[in-house]
Amino acid sequence: MPTITRLLPETAKADAAPLAPREGATKLAPVDGVRFAAVEAGVRYQGRLDVMLAELAPGSSVAGVFTRSATRAAPVLMCERHLKILPAADAPFAILVNSGNANAFTGKHGDTSTDTLATALADRLGCPATHIFPASTGVIGERLPHDRIEAKLDELIAGLSAENGARAAAAIMTTDTYVKGASTTCDLGAPVTISGIAKGSGMIAPDMATMLVYIFTDAAIARPVLQEILSELTHETFNAITVDGDTSTSDTLILGATGRAEMKRIETRDDPRVQVFEEALHAVMLDLAHQVVRDGEGARKFVEIAVSGAASDASARRIGMSIANSPLVKTAIAGEDPNWGRIVMAVGKSGEPADRDRLTIRFGDVLVAQEGWVAESYSEDAGAEHMKQDEITIRVDLGIGGGTDTVWTCDLTDRYIAINADYRS
Amino acid sequence: MPTITRLLPETAKADAAPLAPREGATKLAPVDGVRFAAVEAGVRYQGRLDVMLAELAPGSSVAGVFTRSATRAAPVLMCERHLKILPAADAPFAILVNSGNANAFTGKHGDTSTDTLATALADRLGCPATHIFPASTGVIGERLPHDRIEAKLDELIAGLSAENGARAAAAIMTTDTYVKGASTTCDLGAPVTISGIAKGSGMIAPDMATMLVYIFTDAAIARPVLQEILSELTHETFNAITVDGDTSTSDTLILGATGRAEMKRIETRDDPRVQVFEEALHAVMLDLAHQVVRDGEGARKFVEIAVSGAASDASARRIGMSIANSPLVKTAIAGEDPNWGRIVMAVGKSGEPADRDRLTIRFGDVLVAQEGWVAESYSEDAGAEHMKQDEITIRVDLGIGGGTDTVWTCDLTDRYIAINADYRS
Repeated sequence: MPTITRLLPETAKADAAPLAPREGATKLAPVDGVRFAAVEAGVRYQGRLDVMLAELAPGSSVAGVFTRSATRAAPVLMCERHLKILPAADAPFAILVNSGNANAFTGKHGDTSTDTLATALADRLGCPATHIFPASTGVIGERLPHDRIEAKLDELIAGLSAENGARAAAAIMTTDTYVKGASTTCDLGAPVTISGIAKGSGMIAPDMATMLVYIFTDAAIARPVLQEILSELTHETFNAITVDGDTSTSDTLILGATGRAEMKRIETRDDPRVQVFEEALHAVMLDLAHQVVRDGEGARKFVEIAVSGAASDASARRIGMSIANSPLVKTAIAGEDPNWGRIVMAVGKSGEPADRDRLTIRFGDVLVAQEGWVAESYSEDAGAEHMKQDEITIRVDLGIGGGTDTVWTCDLTDRYIAINADYRS
Repeated sequence: MPTITRLLPETAKADAAPLAPREGATKLAPVDGVRFAAVEAGVRYQGRLDVMLAELAPGSSVAGVFTRSATRAAPVLMCERHLKILPAADAPFAILVNSGNANAFTGKHGDTSTDTLATALADRLGCPATHIFPASTGVIGERLPHDRIEAKLDELIAGLSAENGARAAAAIMTTDTYVKGASTTCDLGAPVTISGIAKGSGMIAPDMATMLVYIFTDAAIARPVLQEILSELTHETFNAITVDGDTSTSDTLILGATGRAEMKRIETRDDPRVQVFEEALHAVMLDLAHQVVRDGEGARKFVEIAVSGAASDASARRIGMSIANSPLVKTAIAGEDPNWGRIVMAVGKSGEPADRDRLTIRFGDVLVAQEGWVAESYSEDAGAEHMKQDEITIRVDLGIGGGTDTVWTCDLTDRYIAINADYRS
């Protein structure tokens, strides 16, 4: 397993984020060819960083994965368009993100805002507007005051530095309780760095509706290969987590590869170095995904749900998500209740093939149920002991096929209700 | 609209059930050919009614609809089998229900319990065992102490009376906060009564996992016609409600028609009286379904979600359920927050065809959003005023087709968490 260095949250409030990283680095490992800047633009929040710029060197390969929501926000639609256009060889790329306003469900005004900002930034950086990848996160349905961001573009460009990754991670937070970053290295003939930042904890607080993830590497990889790798790894990382089953209108994941490492460029998927890169990238993506769950609204428990013996991998995923999204399972975990009856219920309601009498359930290593009934060896004390931990593992074997999958979630606590039932104003 | 008389809850605690009926009758309207009894058998609860018996006269038509869960409980599997067997002409039917233990995920022991009870009851009533329709509701995964129920069968039979419907409704409660019953009449050439009882509020408290509904009529209707009507009306009543999106292992809906009314039997679906009967039955089913939502765990608001302009009726149902099951929508309602951004999110994540710029959203009669943005006429005060009511209506028009559907749910409050995170013991 590649070694991951997490960004150490300076801002974590111990009470609000009981699952926040306790060790890590105060800076994000720099990536050759990537520079960051962050400023206070007062989009909505006052007195904190709320706009970040990341610039990638000319010749970079950029790949992206986005929300499948039918009500995608304007910046998401722009990113999707720009990824389809062949980039210019000698111009940089840029990622421009604001927090405080999601520029979602803003009609034609939303497109005007993203167009204005992309054009203004591209002019200053000397690249086509199609090299700009924007995102916005915050309140839905309010017009983005893009002039406040435009007024800060020169300051952002002047402040660009390879050392500013942690500041960028802070600028994209909304109601996250801590910054999220992770880095690793791998050897692709030359030493290569992979560093990523993320924000989000599900659909977050009242109108804050986004998971944003930006990952950078100095590896040299052709864009089609990069996109293929990213799409595949997303399935088993960011698409395998859930906080509340609600899907944002703005979810954005961008991976940029600058090609600055002293290596021959990876041109095809069957290059043997792809596997090394995938393993390292997977570790960074999975760690960032877990950090998002650990900062899930009101979360006090981190929960892994491993499904095996299902009719297919896809069936295992749906069964895992049925368990992970069940309010009754999640409240039981919050109550430290080894309530395996609710696991049975969630398997049953998934709509997937299952046989009551072949089902096996374990909490951690404790065998709870098998052959359609509670296991003879099971003691409620052993189950309860596992549920007291911060990190819970639920293993479900369907006993009918070879399908496996693992998903991650958090518990559902009274704090989730308190956070989300608060009036917006 | 047929007039519905609800069963007036004597047991409702005003604080626990703010949406309980405030007027109605203390007795369930008797149905000719149906008798009820209820006893204290001490299955799990002490000092309260926990077993009910309903007997239907020989010649009755019985129809049923059950949970589609892949982990259905033993009594559900028995009901499904018995419905497929042609009944004997001159023998009564019986419904036997206990609360306190769900006889679910009890392996082969579960089947032994239902077999034993069905045989013992059939012997005493002089009918084939295939005339018995059992149900159990309560803790999952514990062996049903069926001897305690068997020991009470003679007492139950001796106590049978047409007047005992309300006692039967009380005996099947688990953590329901009040009894649920509804009656109406219609004219099918002769006056006909329809009376039903229900229990449930989603997956209810810790291990209490069932919605049970029993409806009786003295109408004379052939079994295939009765089953067809019941199945169709279930789609727009009990299958159109959700408390928490969790599906029980035991959901059971039985409709018995004794044929005692002075009418010519309805033999085919095209009999013009079918429409009259359907309208009356629909009203009873919908009222009982709404009562279940109103007793939803921790519910303080009753929410109707009316979807129109969707690609199809099925698409409208999925969009309605995506909104109704969204924790973010439900917590916003609990907080009396007219948070239409979350409605947009829930439409977007449903996976159904939608166009952001054609979406119209109303809270009650207040136009909130149209043409992809907040309506010019909208004021937050008007939206907030609607959200303060006990009964909320959310109207969503997709603007892309003719599909419509309506679903009902309740809000998600801190009491839901408190109820479900409590340890079982």
